[in-house]
Amino acid sequence: MTEASLDVVGIGNAIVDVIANAEDAFLAREGLVKGTMALIDAERADALYQMMGPAIEASGGSAGNTMAGLASLGGTGAYIGKVHDDLLGQIYRHDITAAGVRFETPAATSGPGTARCLILVTPDGQRTMNTYLGACVELGPADIDPETVAAARITYLEGYLFDPPSAQQAFRRAAAIAHAAGRQVALSLSDPFCVGRHRAAFRDLVAGHVDILFANEAEICSLYETNDFGTAAAAVRRHVAIAALTRSAAGSVILAAGVEHPVAAATVARVVDTTGAGDLYASGFLYGLTRALPLPICGEIGSLCAAEIISHVGARPEIKLSQLLAEGGA
Amino acid sequence: MTEASLDVVGIGNAIVDVIANAEDAFLAREGLVKGTMALIDAERADALYQMMGPAIEASGGSAGNTMAGLASLGGTGAYIGKVHDDLLGQIYRHDITAAGVRFETPAATSGPGTARCLILVTPDGQRTMNTYLGACVELGPADIDPETVAAARITYLEGYLFDPPSAQQAFRRAAAIAHAAGRQVALSLSDPFCVGRHRAAFRDLVAGHVDILFANEAEICSLYETNDFGTAAAAVRRHVAIAALTRSAAGSVILAAGVEHPVAAATVARVVDTTGAGDLYASGFLYGLTRALPLPICGEIGSLCAAEIISHVGARPEIKLSQLLAEGGA
Repeated sequence: MTEASLDVVGIGNAIVDVIANAEDAFLAREGLVKGTMALIDAERADALYQMMGPAIEASGGSAGNTMAGLASLGGTGAYIGKVHDDLLGQIYRHDITAAGVRFETPAATSGPGTARCLILVTPDGQRTMNTYLGACVELGPADIDPETVAAARITYLEGYLFDPPSAQQAFRRAAAIAHAAGRQVALSLSDPFCVGRHRAAFRDLVAGHVDILFANEAEICSLYETNDFGTAAAAVRRHVAIAALTRSAAGSVILAAGVEHPVAAATVARVVDTTGAGDLYASGFLYGLTRALPLPICGEIGSLCAAEIISHVGARPEIKLSQLLAEGGA
Repeated sequence: MTEASLDVVGIGNAIVDVIANAEDAFLAREGLVKGTMALIDAERADALYQMMGPAIEASGGSAGNTMAGLASLGGTGAYIGKVHDDLLGQIYRHDITAAGVRFETPAATSGPGTARCLILVTPDGQRTMNTYLGACVELGPADIDPETVAAARITYLEGYLFDPPSAQQAFRRAAAIAHAAGRQVALSLSDPFCVGRHRAAFRDLVAGHVDILFANEAEICSLYETNDFGTAAAAVRRHVAIAALTRSAAGSVILAAGVEHPVAAATVARVVDTTGAGDLYASGFLYGLTRALPLPICGEIGSLCAAEIISHVGARPEIKLSQLLAEGGA
């Protein structure tokens, strides 16, 4: 096994977020489930956008956010995802590259435009997401660059990638390349409904191909079809080397080698927008892990990064996370 | 004179902001003057964007920001400005319409794309702007809808509108229509360099066609080519009925009918991004003025709105300003 030249390669849906404030009544009227992600088609995206308030646009995508956060901490990373060669695609490429992440997946020149996620932020800071996958459906196994994957200590896959049809093959190909190169594979379950849509495939993947699993309570419970967090936690620890389970304001718990490490959430003066909380937790955790830091410290760095992201609108860090870390947050 | 059906019609450059953090060294290296606006061409815009950090996109434009703020306070407004029929133009139209502002200027279908302003925010919260005017150069007198202008109590013109060549004619046409309908004309000087580029035209306008003038210290001093604020203030009060002169953290001073009203700045916990401070001061001031509130109260509402906008990234309000006002800020 050669020395890894990258900390993490992240693979995910390359999405530009369109973020607006909304009242709870708006969610109710439109039948949206708070805190979750729904897939929508182009027509619905246009209609929903018409109804939304003034918005800001910012690059997003779960694994993209995680990679931007990792780079902001000082980690080295690459990203694999599919944009279209249009204005939003150019914005996406600019933002992730300018964040310090290598991004070489070619843009699609035919087919649908770059993906958008219409995010409604309610007064409680919770986000409700509506994703039009657009060009993400064009991602396939051919986009997985074997050298990049083999060069990274960890290949990080977002669960959302199971939604576009051919991405699952890309996903499995990346995991196989990583393991053949003696690397680790990490997976984020992303969303309880996403888990519901692909439960069998996720269970198969977790049981046989995942070393490090990220999930929140709703997601891990959905995976094992239980309402009890303890039951779900007991199930997952049989399958993966490390499970980092996040519990919002209650912090997180890390399960590894038969030991359970509770980690407190970092303090936040005011929760403005929870978009990206899980993604940035993963940034911090993976940063620590690729530096062989103790697991509770990995979790604390994750909490610190999550706390930064929920203190403002948008899912990419507004300050250098390396500086935040140096200032002694963790 | 018929009853006005609108509080304010704002006319300006319709611009999408591209906002990124930058170090002071970046400004120095690129020869940018902190706190000011520079005009750039498409090629320079592309080059500068390449060098910028990760950004967010948000609708902007000085008068556009002012109108969005006015609507957020509960005022009624319309906006006249030129976008192209492209993605950024659609975003611009969505945002200002969703803010509650009437926007009926047709998009250009030929010529350059929608305008962009590359905004660099330094760690002190100051913004340095680089504007590619794009479709704004297509705005002309034919875009001034006489009925809309005649229906508004106040026609508000941003000084930046003097930069695109045919907009100055649009500007003068709007002022003439407003006065013929017995309405008032307000002007914001926008930027000291913009004043420098068009000093003679601005002086002519201020002396003969403007009732209400907004300017900061640098702008009013540039207009009268003096380094002394007192001298500039004495000059302007001979020409306009009301001058609202802003002085950053030192608040503002309102000159009217031989009286000088000092107004304190509203408290801000942390200045994140000063983009839009002057624009939102104008929102608050015009809101008060169109409700015939005493001038010091108009200034206080202006300060309150400016304080909200500089507490976050972007130049459009993140909360309902009417609620902020009701909560007793002013």
